[in-house]
Amino acid sequence: METLRWQKGQLILLDQTKLPMTEDYRTCTSWQDVYDAIAILAVRGAPAIGVAAAYGAVLAARSLDQTAYGGDTAAFCADFEDLCRRLDGARPTAVNLHWALEQMKETARNAAGQGMAAIVPALEAKAVQLHQEDVAINTAMAEYGADELAKQGKTLTILTHCNAGALATAGVGTALGVIRALHKRGLIRMVYADETRPLLQGARLTVSELMADGIPVTLITDNMAAWVMKTKGVDAVIVGADRITANGDTANKIGTYGVSILARAHGVPFYVAAPVSTFDLSLQTGEQIPIEERDHDEVRCFQGVPAALPDAAVCNPAFDVTPHKNIAAIITEKGVLSHPDAVQVPAFFAEFTEKR
Amino acid sequence: METLRWQKGQLILLDQTKLPMTEDYRTCTSWQDVYDAIAILAVRGAPAIGVAAAYGAVLAARSLDQTAYGGDTAAFCADFEDLCRRLDGARPTAVNLHWALEQMKETARNAAGQGMAAIVPALEAKAVQLHQEDVAINTAMAEYGADELAKQGKTLTILTHCNAGALATAGVGTALGVIRALHKRGLIRMVYADETRPLLQGARLTVSELMADGIPVTLITDNMAAWVMKTKGVDAVIVGADRITANGDTANKIGTYGVSILARAHGVPFYVAAPVSTFDLSLQTGEQIPIEERDHDEVRCFQGVPAALPDAAVCNPAFDVTPHKNIAAIITEKGVLSHPDAVQVPAFFAEFTEKR
Repeated sequence: METLRWQKGQLILLDQTKLPMTEDYRTCTSWQDVYDAIAILAVRGAPAIGVAAAYGAVLAARSLDQTAYGGDTAAFCADFEDLCRRLDGARPTAVNLHWALEQMKETARNAAGQGMAAIVPALEAKAVQLHQEDVAINTAMAEYGADELAKQGKTLTILTHCNAGALATAGVGTALGVIRALHKRGLIRMVYADETRPLLQGARLTVSELMADGIPVTLITDNMAAWVMKTKGVDAVIVGADRITANGDTANKIGTYGVSILARAHGVPFYVAAPVSTFDLSLQTGEQIPIEERDHDEVRCFQGVPAALPDAAVCNPAFDVTPHKNIAAIITEKGVLSHPDAVQVPAFFAEFTEKR
Repeated sequence: METLRWQKGQLILLDQTKLPMTEDYRTCTSWQDVYDAIAILAVRGAPAIGVAAAYGAVLAARSLDQTAYGGDTAAFCADFEDLCRRLDGARPTAVNLHWALEQMKETARNAAGQGMAAIVPALEAKAVQLHQEDVAINTAMAEYGADELAKQGKTLTILTHCNAGALATAGVGTALGVIRALHKRGLIRMVYADETRPLLQGARLTVSELMADGIPVTLITDNMAAWVMKTKGVDAVIVGADRITANGDTANKIGTYGVSILARAHGVPFYVAAPVSTFDLSLQTGEQIPIEERDHDEVRCFQGVPAALPDAAVCNPAFDVTPHKNIAAIITEKGVLSHPDAVQVPAFFAEFTEKR
């Protein structure tokens, strides 16, 4: 299974809404196809959304008739950027979508200097580069994370929420990348995977990914997390992230905030694994992060089977925000950012920007 | 809808596994029928299980051929008690099942003094009495609870977990009884109902019950509870209970323990509403309460629709234990037991036993 593949100028996406029962692929031939795939969660996970959007931007640029601009690359870029803005609206919370499209817009502007014909090839090369970089980023993050958790000096029982795995990225995953690296070192005793209602990414995706790799995993309902921490000796929680603000507050799948409180109450360190593209330093605190509210039938139903009356009132925030004080460290491809706060986060960025 | 009804010597149970889509009734003509109905959760909720078991005991006594005992009421009672022990095994955690059967065994022994023919009529009268008492107990508890919560002096936003309503009892419910009484006083702003995986008693039962009574209710997935507490101004959590030990530790539906931690972290008072028959003073702490582990397909699936691979490892404890320190008060039909602990619980029992 491959999360996404760029093939003959088309984006082939594994349809994650149907996993693990059906392995089905969607072929995106237009930026609207990519928009739809992101909106319905056929592709999901902040890094994978970023890579998909980059390819979506290539398809957007291709959809514009270059001959109609009479060589006016500025006008072409303006229309391209307008399509990027529309694609950017597919989901509001994960900042990697926005980040990838910003990279693509910048690439188009830079390529425009070499004339109209240079733009689309430059965009395609950039998308492929972002895709390949995500693979490398995942690997680096996994090793940094494994080094950090290995400090506990024993085999570990880990709890995770949602899917921050290969299916959420182009590589080995963020949180699950760390778990994979720990498993290679013989340091995983058991992974407890929250099923992650309403869309069950934990049950459907995380459990399947870990089983496929022979990593011991036990599926639990979200409401068992506290009892598992109390009775099963959980050593760490690791999750992914959709957006991290300048003070370290972290938006991630709904339920993550609750897990962070439960971890704190049980003295379990809570880790976030995310590439630096997940940071949105334009926002000071998590309160500024827009939270996507999704279709209420996602909550009323379970895999399409109704569980509540069709007119039941519902709330369905797809994300919540974990305050930085609940986070032991953020694991990135640039290293481990311990005790993130409004001082540590900018200091961390300053350090690796200097190194660059 | 009526949760359970004794009619012409048969127990008619609303099949709660099919709600809210289908209103179907099961007719129990034998104690084994009652056992099965309890085991599959056609009837559930500690008080309702107690009443159903009382009627099950009547059916058990009837199944014995009185003529075969030659007037030996002691032998009859021994065989009856053996059937009660088997019925008692239908579910391990809720103590009300055991409590009701103890009442029935005592009733049989007392009636035996008037001869063999007196036993079954006495059992039937006792079951009807326990049934009627549960209605009265619910009403008393609801008023005590409403008095307690009304002290906040404002309309209330309440969060509840699982179903501790009319469907869990013979009356207005325990936790939902309190909510109904508050609603009658105009004091309910909103009730947030956790869906309560794996069997979704919140989504299927609590939401339907409250909607039917015109009480404002919003369905959430279990993992939204923390975010709702943070963003919606929850004033109190109220839940039911399946067994309460001598120090106030409380077994209730899986997830309750986590909610109690989240409530504490948000400064939200956490209430348990339960009849005194829920107390098991033979146990000193919650660690001694047996926790039922149920079929793993309940977690892998919902209503037969799979969400995870069929060979995924699972844990499925049906209950967890909330430590007494997380409980603001236990609301009973005898009054409100604040700050329950190993001193307060016995003192509370001593007080109302004296009053009796």
